[in-house]
Amino acid sequence: MDYPKRKLIMLPGPTNVPDRVTDAMIRPMINHRGEMFTTLLRGITEKSKSLFQTVRDPIVLSASGTGGVEAAVWNMVRPGDKVVVPVFGEFSTRLAETVELAGGQCVRVIAEIGKVPTREEVEDAIAKTPGLKAVFVVHNETSTGCTVPYIEGLAETVRRTEAFYVVDAISSLGGYSIPVDRWGVDVCITGSQKCLAAPPGLSLLSLSAKAEEFIRTNPPKVRYFDLARQLDFLARGETPFTPAVSLYYALDSALEMLVEEGLERRVERHARHARTLYSVLDAMGLRGFADPAVRSNTVIAGLYPDGIDEKKFRKSMDEEYDVVIGAGFGAMKAKMFRIGCMGEIGPTHVRRTVSAMVLTLKRFGYSVDLGKVSGALEAAS
Amino acid sequence: MDYPKRKLIMLPGPTNVPDRVTDAMIRPMINHRGEMFTTLLRGITEKSKSLFQTVRDPIVLSASGTGGVEAAVWNMVRPGDKVVVPVFGEFSTRLAETVELAGGQCVRVIAEIGKVPTREEVEDAIAKTPGLKAVFVVHNETSTGCTVPYIEGLAETVRRTEAFYVVDAISSLGGYSIPVDRWGVDVCITGSQKCLAAPPGLSLLSLSAKAEEFIRTNPPKVRYFDLARQLDFLARGETPFTPAVSLYYALDSALEMLVEEGLERRVERHARHARTLYSVLDAMGLRGFADPAVRSNTVIAGLYPDGIDEKKFRKSMDEEYDVVIGAGFGAMKAKMFRIGCMGEIGPTHVRRTVSAMVLTLKRFGYSVDLGKVSGALEAAS
Repeated sequence: MDYPKRKLIMLPGPTNVPDRVTDAMIRPMINHRGEMFTTLLRGITEKSKSLFQTVRDPIVLSASGTGGVEAAVWNMVRPGDKVVVPVFGEFSTRLAETVELAGGQCVRVIAEIGKVPTREEVEDAIAKTPGLKAVFVVHNETSTGCTVPYIEGLAETVRRTEAFYVVDAISSLGGYSIPVDRWGVDVCITGSQKCLAAPPGLSLLSLSAKAEEFIRTNPPKVRYFDLARQLDFLARGETPFTPAVSLYYALDSALEMLVEEGLERRVERHARHARTLYSVLDAMGLRGFADPAVRSNTVIAGLYPDGIDEKKFRKSMDEEYDVVIGAGFGAMKAKMFRIGCMGEIGPTHVRRTVSAMVLTLKRFGYSVDLGKVSGALEAAS
Repeated sequence: MDYPKRKLIMLPGPTNVPDRVTDAMIRPMINHRGEMFTTLLRGITEKSKSLFQTVRDPIVLSASGTGGVEAAVWNMVRPGDKVVVPVFGEFSTRLAETVELAGGQCVRVIAEIGKVPTREEVEDAIAKTPGLKAVFVVHNETSTGCTVPYIEGLAETVRRTEAFYVVDAISSLGGYSIPVDRWGVDVCITGSQKCLAAPPGLSLLSLSAKAEEFIRTNPPKVRYFDLARQLDFLARGETPFTPAVSLYYALDSALEMLVEEGLERRVERHARHARTLYSVLDAMGLRGFADPAVRSNTVIAGLYPDGIDEKKFRKSMDEEYDVVIGAGFGAMKAKMFRIGCMGEIGPTHVRRTVSAMVLTLKRFGYSVDLGKVSGALEAAS
């Protein structure tokens, strides 16, 4: 293949990877059963604790986000288990299907796409499901740009039952704060290539003591994703199976940058740039896709004006401005764009994207009010 | 962590990664749903065909070897299926356990470690297992340095049944030739970090038409490792889930190097350096661990002279000579060393390892006949 040109990656993952993180991957190969790897792994573990806000050791799996979510399912769900899953887009649909593959009985709480089931609807499903085993919630629906606003509140509700509380925070953790210990999240899963701005290929999971005890007394059927085995090896500074060493190097650097910035500041930065992007889209006269009450700070989903061919639009942004934005998903594919607001997102990312959109929209016959757009950008800075 | 020093990695995986392969990872991040990734993936697919000697498209999974093997198990084994597994070390033991986790009934054909079950023993088990679903064979037992010498012959036997033939070639493919189409191997699995000399984190699988048909008519319970889904996306130049893009860059470069060298030459190179290593160990008066009839060309397992502390020996080799060799496994841990003869293995790798061993053995009170060692090295070149 040709050497790829460096573009501004405004996708809902993978995101732009800072050179400091990319360059970490060229470090020499090491023995994954040696001291150097243990030092690397321990450093990752410590820094991951601040990401999940936990005193327990998070687990890193050499698999991308979907693998991490599947690990959570196979470790926590046993055949016949009743599991409540809010379903409001592609990834929550997949999650429910994976629960069923593992033998679980899914109670779906469905909202139309662009919305999120209400807290009351989810709590109602919980109340009506005697012997509930777990509640699995996708925090941020990458496919629709909708975020569940009641992760903390729902935790309280679940805590009053015997059920486990599992949060898929693949495209949100780091862009949002989810203090898993304080809120009582039993399993929280995220990916390397979203708000951490590392390359794709790793997933990270936190496990509560209650979740660990369950897995230890009810070993899962899976091996590569067996989280008890992962914890056993982690305790001695190793992974059970050969880890993707180069990606661990990158993750370590990415977590260093998180710690240097501070989680709180990173969360605020994601929120700030999301606000700007939404207000600029509004100034352009473009409608956001998500219900404003639940719109995401990390995935900005919007709708094209009528008559714009989404494929051609993205191609034009890509080829003429080196700005890569995401397509829509499923039924909304022809109408929707998604802009990632993740990882190293900063003012120039926003400005480069917006300026390219303004001229590309113009080229496609849709004129924006430049004064309004400029005003929205200025107001934000 | 400190920046790791570049050492000679003579492990049975990961191995030394050529700079050309490592450097490929710093290419800019790209959209995994864009044309550039499709070009990358198609290139990997084409080159992988020459690795497996198949006309069908091999699959790349963002998971290390154990994940690839587990994928083969969950895709091919259904609850109650009878599966014959030769067991002769750690990895074949794990394989049998994984078959059982997936609900299979394992017929183990066990050999003491350091040996391989005979072909007759395996064929006997096949003959005595009516309704046999599959034969799963670890080609090269990384834990003992033993290689099954009858992969081709056993293929003929299995072909006379209805069973599937699955070969775990994690630590052998590329160092050995396994023409999967010609021999009739239904599933063959290898890893990125062994004879391909890429970093760890990816596994590669070939699937026969018969295996594909089975999976399509009997969908597996797993999702991340669902090989039919992988093939569907591969047909349109994508992966179903976010791939470890940086590792795909590295794999592409590693496969380029394989194609440039040619599989046949690479296999011969592995065999040649393995012969040298065995003859030098012999000249040193060190016993090989594996039965000579089945000793591996990719993992050279040997026994320390009495009185040598294996941990101290490896530490000394590492710290004083920058040569990293592997420890033993399981019951043999205190007595065994393993030297990887994989990937970019060449004359200087062998000479650096041997010269460091000679002086380290001396330091630990064991003297070798330098003339013999030198003679063995000279005879080899």
